[in-house]
Amino acid sequence: MNVGIIGLGLIGGSLALDLRARGHYVWGISRNPDTCETAIAIEAVDAASHDAMAIATLRPADIVVLCTPLDAILPVLAAIAPHLQQHSPAAIVTDVGSVKAAIVAGGQALWPRFAGSHPMAGTEQSGIHAAISDLFRDRLCAVVPHADAAVTAAVKTLWESVGATVCECDAEAHDRAVATISHLPVVVSASLILTGDRIPDPQIRQLAQGLASSGFRDTSRVGGGNPELGRLMAEGNRTHLLAAIDAYRLTLDELRDAIYAGRWTELQTLLQLARDARAAFVE
Amino acid sequence: MNVGIIGLGLIGGSLALDLRARGHYVWGISRNPDTCETAIAIEAVDAASHDAMAIATLRPADIVVLCTPLDAILPVLAAIAPHLQQHSPAAIVTDVGSVKAAIVAGGQALWPRFAGSHPMAGTEQSGIHAAISDLFRDRLCAVVPHADAAVTAAVKTLWESVGATVCECDAEAHDRAVATISHLPVVVSASLILTGDRIPDPQIRQLAQGLASSGFRDTSRVGGGNPELGRLMAEGNRTHLLAAIDAYRLTLDELRDAIYAGRWTELQTLLQLARDARAAFVE
Repeated sequence: MNVGIIGLGLIGGSLALDLRARGHYVWGISRNPDTCETAIAIEAVDAASHDAMAIATLRPADIVVLCTPLDAILPVLAAIAPHLQQHSPAAIVTDVGSVKAAIVAGGQALWPRFAGSHPMAGTEQSGIHAAISDLFRDRLCAVVPHADAAVTAAVKTLWESVGATVCECDAEAHDRAVATISHLPVVVSASLILTGDRIPDPQIRQLAQGLASSGFRDTSRVGGGNPELGRLMAEGNRTHLLAAIDAYRLTLDELRDAIYAGRWTELQTLLQLARDARAAFVE
Repeated sequence: MNVGIIGLGLIGGSLALDLRARGHYVWGISRNPDTCETAIAIEAVDAASHDAMAIATLRPADIVVLCTPLDAILPVLAAIAPHLQQHSPAAIVTDVGSVKAAIVAGGQALWPRFAGSHPMAGTEQSGIHAAISDLFRDRLCAVVPHADAAVTAAVKTLWESVGATVCECDAEAHDRAVATISHLPVVVSASLILTGDRIPDPQIRQLAQGLASSGFRDTSRVGGGNPELGRLMAEGNRTHLLAAIDAYRLTLDELRDAIYAGRWTELQTLLQLARDARAAFVE
């Protein structure tokens, strides 16, 4: 199979590594010439170019995966669609964006054989130098089914071939679900860090920094992630994220009120509910 | 040195293991006879009893460490003080509670040579079966200095002997700092889990459970911890925790308002501040 990867960062580079290791011919496009050189050097791709027009000179792709930042997915697809139309007219196109409704609608308007994907994988690193093999192994990948079952099947097969478990879901349902389990944690966690950083008394703040342990480390991890990614996720999933934040504030206030009023049995019951409920999300 | 450990759970059991491995004579008290048997069987203690009166029959202790749940520290000290007074009148007493002001004041009223400690260590497990060697190695331990420098020194030496780095701090400052970096994360994290669990549409909730990945796992970890511990921390540090929650809500609302108003540059700046600020807490 010939695969085109547009955007050779952590996700695109890691996917390229896995696909090429499985014997596929992989070409890549990155706007950064250094990234293209690195991708070739680490043997993630067979060929790479910083010029989207080079698609005309590469092997016709069976499948093209858009791995750019969220806000670039549709503009990049718009830019490459004419070249693809000319040289890979039968190509199936997918993406890896963390928001699906707007991407799928916009993507299918630009390329009818477009089906959205969202692999639930990543590290705290970014860029081609962070690319690793088996990033998707045993991870879930959401795929929004296409009206043409053959398109859906091709995209599913792609992700399953690199070890992911595919979960088919409606784009709107996906966006509502990830608002709570993926985008809300960023806001919750960043707010925690900022609360610590804004402790008014510098001596208490310094002591807090010194005493912070694994609990703070884990709870603050996603809030300390890539700020641009965080902004793009919020921008792309604004309505559902706001609904999730508002639901969160009601729950936070419920715990706060129990503490304020000294209703300790109620607090412990809520913490027990949280403990019991967590298993369904993390197991 | 002869050391008495009152409460043979994860913390008490692990401390006993380390101290005994370093050649000290360690006796333990647990209200549960099975725990005493296990503590002897795993060679965490030289002797153990479920009866606090047995202190009279054990070797006089140089130091006694109260490792019970937070709400039992002062009642247990009150109960054993007469026995200690009779058989180990020179003993120094410390504790491992996560709140210090009330414990230190109450502890010193019951036993003048009492100095509070708070080792920043733990696992998700509890009980004597969870006890492990080197639990405190390279971890911070807060020690509230005693008016008698010799008492402070003895407590510091105890923790340093098991590999901890001691941080001397005022009890009130300790409680304010841990409210933000240790107790607030529990509330923040439990609220996140409950928000996920309360997604009204069962299909979206199920999808969220399926798609939840490492970000949700890490952010929800401390919220899924022991509900009784969480309740005791909140009860013991209520005032400072409420102040931390209120500061947190203001920050959360600031991020929420930026998202609501579409002020994306402001949001990204806040996320960048969070990323930059995190290093001082976790490194």
